[in-house]
Amino acid sequence: MRSDTILSAEISMPLINRLAVVGVGLIGGSFARALREAGAVAEIVGIDRDRENLDRARELGIIDRGCVDPAEGVRGADFVFVAVPVCAIAAVVALIAPHLAPGAVVTDGGSVKEGVVAECEALLPPAVSFIGGHPIAGTEHSGAAASFAALYRGKRCIVTPTPRSDRAALAKVVAAWEAAGAVVVTMDVAKHDRVVAAISHLPHMVAYALVNAVEGYRHGGEGLLRYSAGGFRDFTRIASSDPIMWRDIALMNKGAVLEMMDHFAGYFGTLRKLVAAGDGPGLERFFRESKESRDAIL
Amino acid sequence: MRSDTILSAEISMPLINRLAVVGVGLIGGSFARALREAGAVAEIVGIDRDRENLDRARELGIIDRGCVDPAEGVRGADFVFVAVPVCAIAAVVALIAPHLAPGAVVTDGGSVKEGVVAECEALLPPAVSFIGGHPIAGTEHSGAAASFAALYRGKRCIVTPTPRSDRAALAKVVAAWEAAGAVVVTMDVAKHDRVVAAISHLPHMVAYALVNAVEGYRHGGEGLLRYSAGGFRDFTRIASSDPIMWRDIALMNKGAVLEMMDHFAGYFGTLRKLVAAGDGPGLERFFRESKESRDAIL
Repeated sequence: MRSDTILSAEISMPLINRLAVVGVGLIGGSFARALREAGAVAEIVGIDRDRENLDRARELGIIDRGCVDPAEGVRGADFVFVAVPVCAIAAVVALIAPHLAPGAVVTDGGSVKEGVVAECEALLPPAVSFIGGHPIAGTEHSGAAASFAALYRGKRCIVTPTPRSDRAALAKVVAAWEAAGAVVVTMDVAKHDRVVAAISHLPHMVAYALVNAVEGYRHGGEGLLRYSAGGFRDFTRIASSDPIMWRDIALMNKGAVLEMMDHFAGYFGTLRKLVAAGDGPGLERFFRESKESRDAIL
Repeated sequence: MRSDTILSAEISMPLINRLAVVGVGLIGGSFARALREAGAVAEIVGIDRDRENLDRARELGIIDRGCVDPAEGVRGADFVFVAVPVCAIAAVVALIAPHLAPGAVVTDGGSVKEGVVAECEALLPPAVSFIGGHPIAGTEHSGAAASFAALYRGKRCIVTPTPRSDRAALAKVVAAWEAAGAVVVTMDVAKHDRVVAAISHLPHMVAYALVNAVEGYRHGGEGLLRYSAGGFRDFTRIASSDPIMWRDIALMNKGAVLEMMDHFAGYFGTLRKLVAAGDGPGLERFFRESKESRDAIL
């Protein structure tokens, strides 16, 4: 009897006792909501520079209490999720580092990892762990009010341990994302940055350049963009993304982004040669290979 | 009384007496359905190499009778719509030219115009007019059964007269597309080919090259395409288009496609320089201009 009670008490203990979320927007707010819904957290403290956004998050039950001061907000937290723009992550970690409880686990949601993870690992005291993370999820909306518990359900979250990572801390971060409904994939930071450069950053660079190119083309003094139909609009949707966020990504993942841009330029140059040569069979092969690859990821 | 009767008889005369549609697929079949629905045609003859497709079109009431021989099918038609792949249009026109009734109007639905229109104009006898057309509409399906009357409703149709075009023939083609529900824009053939190169052909070249580039990239022996998420799949949807059709477009609109590819490569190169230089303000400006252009065509 007694051991059963202890066992059930252990089982019902939430994964996280006090969760501090720095940046209670779409990403941070949805993480808080999902963990609350899963019963994986006892208490949630929200930290945000925007007092109105914090009040809204408390009214919506996303957080239990709000705090504009990160140093104060993370006190006593055993799990800290830094959900701020990728260029601000290291600065936030530097700010909270002296105030973290021993044994605390810090993770982030930034879309670039190699530099950020190295910086954050170096900033934290030995008793505190940093584990990088990157949930592949989002919407075009932002702010606490836009967050929802199901954002991560069935979506991939890439977790990027390093040789320095504490195994228990890694397990806790993985468990938290799984509790939020995500499918966790672990990979090293360098590979992560190339994966996202290829499947996300490169397409954005291409789309931004494409829209500017078409807008910049003049035929008899007239622009052509006004003739665009649904297909062009769909294809270039990602060129409507936030310029500040993409400036930061291009700056922070510069090496991998340049590598992918050059890699793409090589393929684009090959295709140009096929068009210039009027090489029918070569063009058909190029298009067919692309179609087959694309159809395989449908 | 008598003149009223004549007047009303004139008003109820359809725009087209006998319509011949060569190629009863999505494009040709939808044109036939739309004109029939609008009461703009008295009789519709379908011409197609595929006897089964013709039978299906007749069963569905798209055409009144079917014919596998183009020469026989166009006999007595006052309006001929050539809705075959763009590389086959001139060959079809050559085939039907000796069998067309004087005063007949021939038009097409091909997505490349300059070369095709010049060829077709040269092939027809003086008493028959060719007017190029290009409806900006379609779906991923093909065949008569996939056609529907509303395909062109509210969509743009570019009609491309030349200095040789007969004004009455041009007016009839414009009226037919308007009866089908399309919004007609007229422009010269050279401009047409640059417009579609910019807003359609270039995006396809970019998407095909992008998918092949990402598929061809190897990190530690492993491909990255399997990590792609919804965003990449949406962006590269057009790379699943028919390789044969795009081979033909790249061959037939070679000049304009190369011009646009080089124009794009210039912008992509500019962006690469901004990334390589870590030029934050320059990157933000590049992305912001693109976003503003993109948002303006929403």
